[in-house]
Amino acid sequence: MAKKIRIGLIGGGEGSFIGGIHYRAAMLDGYYELVCGAFSSDPEKSKRSAGVYHVDPQRAYPGWKEMFEKEAAMPEDKRMQAVIIATPNYLHYPQAIRALENGIHVICDKPMTISLEEAEALAGKVKETGLVFALTHTYTGYAMVKEARQIIKSGKIGNIRKIVVEYPQGWLSTPVEETDNKQAGWRSNPEFNGPGGCLGDIGVHAANLAEYISGLTIESLCADINSFVSGRELDDDANVLLRLRGGARAILYASQISAGEENPLKIRVYGEKGGIEWQQHEPSTLMLRMLDQPAQVLRAGQNYEYLSDIARWNLRLPAGHPEGFIEAFANIYRNAATDILRYMGTEAEGTEFAEYPTVYDGVKGMQFIEKVIESAQSSNKWIPFD
Amino acid sequence: MAKKIRIGLIGGGEGSFIGGIHYRAAMLDGYYELVCGAFSSDPEKSKRSAGVYHVDPQRAYPGWKEMFEKEAAMPEDKRMQAVIIATPNYLHYPQAIRALENGIHVICDKPMTISLEEAEALAGKVKETGLVFALTHTYTGYAMVKEARQIIKSGKIGNIRKIVVEYPQGWLSTPVEETDNKQAGWRSNPEFNGPGGCLGDIGVHAANLAEYISGLTIESLCADINSFVSGRELDDDANVLLRLRGGARAILYASQISAGEENPLKIRVYGEKGGIEWQQHEPSTLMLRMLDQPAQVLRAGQNYEYLSDIARWNLRLPAGHPEGFIEAFANIYRNAATDILRYMGTEAEGTEFAEYPTVYDGVKGMQFIEKVIESAQSSNKWIPFD
Amino acid sequence: MAKKIRIGLIGGGEGSFIGGIHYRAAMLDGYYELVCGAFSSDPEKSKRSAGVYHVDPQRAYPGWKEMFEKEAAMPEDKRMQAVIIATPNYLHYPQAIRALENGIHVICDKPMTISLEEAEALAGKVKETGLVFALTHTYTGYAMVKEARQIIKSGKIGNIRKIVVEYPQGWLSTPVEETDNKQAGWRSNPEFNGPGGCLGDIGVHAANLAEYISGLTIESLCADINSFVSGRELDDDANVLLRLRGGARAILYASQISAGEENPLKIRVYGEKGGIEWQQHEPSTLMLRMLDQPAQVLRAGQNYEYLSDIARWNLRLPAGHPEGFIEAFANIYRNAATDILRYMGTEAEGTEFAEYPTVYDGVKGMQFIEKVIESAQSSNKWIPFD
Amino acid sequence: MAKKIRIGLIGGGEGSFIGGIHYRAAMLDGYYELVCGAFSSDPEKSKRSAGVYHVDPQRAYPGWKEMFEKEAAMPEDKRMQAVIIATPNYLHYPQAIRALENGIHVICDKPMTISLEEAEALAGKVKETGLVFALTHTYTGYAMVKEARQIIKSGKIGNIRKIVVEYPQGWLSTPVEETDNKQAGWRSNPEFNGPGGCLGDIGVHAANLAEYISGLTIESLCADINSFVSGRELDDDANVLLRLRGGARAILYASQISAGEENPLKIRVYGEKGGIEWQQHEPSTLMLRMLDQPAQVLRAGQNYEYLSDIARWNLRLPAGHPEGFIEAFANIYRNAATDILRYMGTEAEGTEFAEYPTVYDGVKGMQFIEKVIESAQSSNKWIPFD
Repeated sequence: MAKKIRIGLIGGGEGSFIGGIHYRAAMLDGYYELVCGAFSSDPEKSKRSAGVYHVDPQRAYPGWKEMFEKEAAMPEDKRMQAVIIATPNYLHYPQAIRALENGIHVICDKPMTISLEEAEALAGKVKETGLVFALTHTYTGYAMVKEARQIIKSGKIGNIRKIVVEYPQGWLSTPVEETDNKQAGWRSNPEFNGPGGCLGDIGVHAANLAEYISGLTIESLCADINSFVSGRELDDDANVLLRLRGGARAILYASQISAGEENPLKIRVYGEKGGIEWQQHEPSTLMLRMLDQPAQVLRAGQNYEYLSDIARWNLRLPAGHPEGFIEAFANIYRNAATDILRYMGTEAEGTEFAEYPTVYDGVKGMQFIEKVIESAQSSNKWIPFD
Repeated sequence: MAKKIRIGLIGGGEGSFIGGIHYRAAMLDGYYELVCGAFSSDPEKSKRSAGVYHVDPQRAYPGWKEMFEKEAAMPEDKRMQAVIIATPNYLHYPQAIRALENGIHVICDKPMTISLEEAEALAGKVKETGLVFALTHTYTGYAMVKEARQIIKSGKIGNIRKIVVEYPQGWLSTPVEETDNKQAGWRSNPEFNGPGGCLGDIGVHAANLAEYISGLTIESLCADINSFVSGRELDDDANVLLRLRGGARAILYASQISAGEENPLKIRVYGEKGGIEWQQHEPSTLMLRMLDQPAQVLRAGQNYEYLSDIARWNLRLPAGHPEGFIEAFANIYRNAATDILRYMGTEAEGTEFAEYPTVYDGVKGMQFIEKVIESAQSSNKWIPFD
Repeated sequence: MAKKIRIGLIGGGEGSFIGGIHYRAAMLDGYYELVCGAFSSDPEKSKRSAGVYHVDPQRAYPGWKEMFEKEAAMPEDKRMQAVIIATPNYLHYPQAIRALENGIHVICDKPMTISLEEAEALAGKVKETGLVFALTHTYTGYAMVKEARQIIKSGKIGNIRKIVVEYPQGWLSTPVEETDNKQAGWRSNPEFNGPGGCLGDIGVHAANLAEYISGLTIESLCADINSFVSGRELDDDANVLLRLRGGARAILYASQISAGEENPLKIRVYGEKGGIEWQQHEPSTLMLRMLDQPAQVLRAGQNYEYLSDIARWNLRLPAGHPEGFIEAFANIYRNAATDILRYMGTEAEGTEFAEYPTVYDGVKGMQFIEKVIESAQSSNKWIPFD
Repeated sequence: MAKKIRIGLIGGGEGSFIGGIHYRAAMLDGYYELVCGAFSSDPEKSKRSAGVYHVDPQRAYPGWKEMFEKEAAMPEDKRMQAVIIATPNYLHYPQAIRALENGIHVICDKPMTISLEEAEALAGKVKETGLVFALTHTYTGYAMVKEARQIIKSGKIGNIRKIVVEYPQGWLSTPVEETDNKQAGWRSNPEFNGPGGCLGDIGVHAANLAEYISGLTIESLCADINSFVSGRELDDDANVLLRLRGGARAILYASQISAGEENPLKIRVYGEKGGIEWQQHEPSTLMLRMLDQPAQVLRAGQNYEYLSDIARWNLRLPAGHPEGFIEAFANIYRNAATDILRYMGTEAEGTEFAEYPTVYDGVKGMQFIEKVIESAQSSNKWIPFD
């Protein structure tokens, strides 16, 4: 894996939170080299960001369309091969489509688009091109989340009966979108953000995590969504009952008015013989509780032979050396890289573990948002999924 | 408070879990003396239990009806003044009514009755007699639960927006009612148990805790209840969305098939300015999280002047000396005792803190069970409360 | 076990912390009936306490000598059979000796005496009389501490290499003995308290816990003790390196100037194959960590068949229902009761588990205090134990 | 900060644990570009590692001496400007000296050398050249450790009375050095490792952390060190009492036979008015406990204005997004980078926070090791520091 994948970045200009994360996640394991960017819709700002991202100022473009154009014109051994899309949601779709049309692999932030329709169209395009499309559902990048999935897959805890997945945050407890908080700003505008407020921002993470870990899919749901802060157009709190195919039931909630909470995304899955529990604030720990036995504390650690191969592949350190959010994010980059490299004809180590969220997870996410909103507006109790 | 209240016990015979708890809770602080009992419906067993409970074998009666009769015939300074009802649910109503008719104060296990109708009739009788009726909703007996209530009452965390109360247990993950587990046995039979399975056993605790801490009441609910273990007649899992009067929303769940869980009843309440969190597995700790401030760890301790007077009154020990379930249970006994003593003309210390669950909490509990079941059977989304 | 043991209490008058604990611990399980007391050295106060402890005012004596005298003169079926000694340390010896001389069983607070000499003399007297003498080293009363001992005894974690036992408290961070804090008052006076400050108050608990759990004994030690608060005569902080017979090493520390700490007595024991960890703030949990395996969370619960019989005997509740400090204390009372009953000719249930700290633990405690002080004053590195 | 610092790596070849960490830490924030390496003492292996580290194979040198030679001959705008030393301890000194002589900045693993003498000579050389020398005492790179230091510096918890710093690991519980574990291999040989076993590997981290957070220095110490695994030449367990200048006392222990422990380095510092606690397994949390107040949970988060500027500078993410070991490591790289850039004439952002462990920390570490060993061999109780 000597050659690095040449990648460009759209978004991530001054005041961006997620840009720096994408950058670090891409850098961490050495698979990528950032060669260009359209860091801001403001050409001046975009230029200034070249320094921040150690990019040749000539390749800090004033706009994303120009970036695709100019890069396409560069010699094949110089031009970008992949692109990071870290822009407000409404831009994901046009940018991703353009990248794919130019033969460029995509690593895209979530939620994938601002409508299910867009999401399905994008999935069609990905299929058509055969290019790699990774969606940064960070949380399934954690090694111990992958371990949880393996445990459930193995049948160890038996058929699943119940899932509780919760994602409480408190940062929108006040109308921060009315301050100059850039994050809160565009997220509060349905035009830029899409229809789901906390649904789109974090609800889709919760749904994705539940389906990923359990291997189950949603059959129908019943939701109550709210907008607690006065003047806020989009939901800031969502409570959902779910029925999963095969008979399991679930509770999912996402909230951004849970005052005092940081980011403790948490999931519990209960089967006939045992249960598992994982929480993002302590991501290196996975609890496994078998009926009438002492609970077991499974811990991240490359050295732990009791972990599955895939979990260990997604770790970099021995036990007791915490890996965090950036490392989980980087796992998506790393696993996508092995697929990109394979596409390019280079077989990289770890291809058998090259698992990461794709355009199909993005489609599901958009479907989830739309169904929850439909349910919230309906007096029917259960809204079926197709 | 020199004189002890003479109390009798119905139930608690061999194999009983709750009998020993009632006994210890009554003994702990010295307010009560156990003078008689109808420990089992089997006269032989009842007699044998006299030793266990250190009761004069003459006053270990073969049945509860006989107990009330014989005790009524005893000299006034000897006969029972209060009774503990620790029997299967269907017996609570007739036993409590009889006690009240005989002028005897009642400490009754929950759920209070097997129907809302019975519950309301009982409430009428309590009101009529003016006697003390305490319902052992243990969890509101914890000092830090009382502290949580005080904090919310004080307005510190602002108007409440959201409550999440969860009560997962795993002990009914298998059909234990088909073994000789006495606890599971009668609970699985609607005739003896009433209509709510895990709803009646633990769901009412969760609802009671939420209303107690928040001071809010339920406006409507939407429920999904399940019976996962094949052959089980009653619910073993209940997931409920709630709307509370004044605009707050809540999620409540109770489950006895959450494999691997013990008894981690937990509540989180989020207001406009902060949130609180309490969990029964670590009952001496109450988390208080104000927006943008370090979370505060409020701890039980008679010596902590930052706690409210009522919380400190309900503690016996300095910080770092854990008080547990029996102490919480005993707080109900202790606080009811001050009311019983007052009724008898003795002013005891702490009467201003004499707060404990009453017959009205019992009525609410039965209403909760009936509404959840109604919702579960309905295709209407929201079932209103009166 | 129908008959209750008639017990008296010395100490526990107004402002006492430990009196109420002894009382509740004695009451909890119904083995004892409090029949008399010398609650205070002030006859008026002693009288007033009769009400608090529900004792016949005639038997609330003005002094402990009078109590022994008057009780001895009472009819055999009325007089006290056992005594609780909950007085300042310097009184333990004369009171215990007198009790034993009168044929009365003793439950005594720790540290046992104010000198090793006294302790040895007392041990001689106990042996001579054959009466029951229990010392309230509370922490070894916890069920999960007993479980830890069983695990180590079984060889599961292999030969022990290292122990770390720590007991940090913060309540003496300021000169509280100069306020009217009664607890701190006599404890600061060597004449009443004996030579060890925090050593006597909590250091002996730490040493007792380490020896109890590990089954090992101290060979030599090296200590640094301090008195941080100006004007304080006795130690308020002690740090000790220990060598145990058989080759294990240990660190023990006790401190009452560890600002902000409550009472988190904690022990870790490491063997060749695994380690265990227990902490008093969460007494229902025992961590077991075997090499290269997921850690196991052993939990208190009468229903857990994976626990040893002795641990389960010392529990009253199913898993998830916390038992705390009073329950641990009560285990000493309960286990001593089975021995007292046996002495009286009644075989009680659980005699095979009748394990509790005795006069020999008291002797060891006094030896520990004296050796630590000797070491602190010596320039020799290691002070041997006999 | 557009230009990246060109850095080389010595060590990190196949089977290395620390090489990959240095690499990722250097890559994470984009300050460095890895341009060359002498990855192994085996020329073949070194060559093979070029791919792993994305380095031009021409610049993957067969040995470190050759690397320095060849790089010095390269054009100024191509050649290495800094070097990472990630080799067995005995090589640190000659490699660092050579780098400094060539005008190359050094980022060196710890312990710094294999003797105090070497350490002092190296400090002299650093001073003489004025070049940047950073020592990777990772743990002081954590933002919340820096916060702890700021709190103590501010006087918030008052004068320090006591420190407890502990570093238990279990990975050397068995003779892994006799297997093909490369990490354990050279560490067990005093010639390659230096005189301190677990002392050098982790003891110096504990000592460094205590001095860094408290701002205090060691006055004298008293140590007991052990080698529990038979056949092991160096210490695998060290227990130390410390007296600090100004009157504070401390306990420090480091152990690699604490079976079942991963890497829970932990420190508690107690002052006159409060205490702080930090543990590496949960590095985003810092407990602050002021006397008689609820404990405060200080949490990592760029958004938390209650944190000091330096703590926030050393964070990359908002609260609830865990940063781990690599991020702490990268903080050393990042802060050293601002000094290297300043040396080169480029003012980078954050120079006012450019704090990281230097050659003087390395000198102290070697002194600590030597004094502990001296104490362990002495019958004198206290071994003074100069």
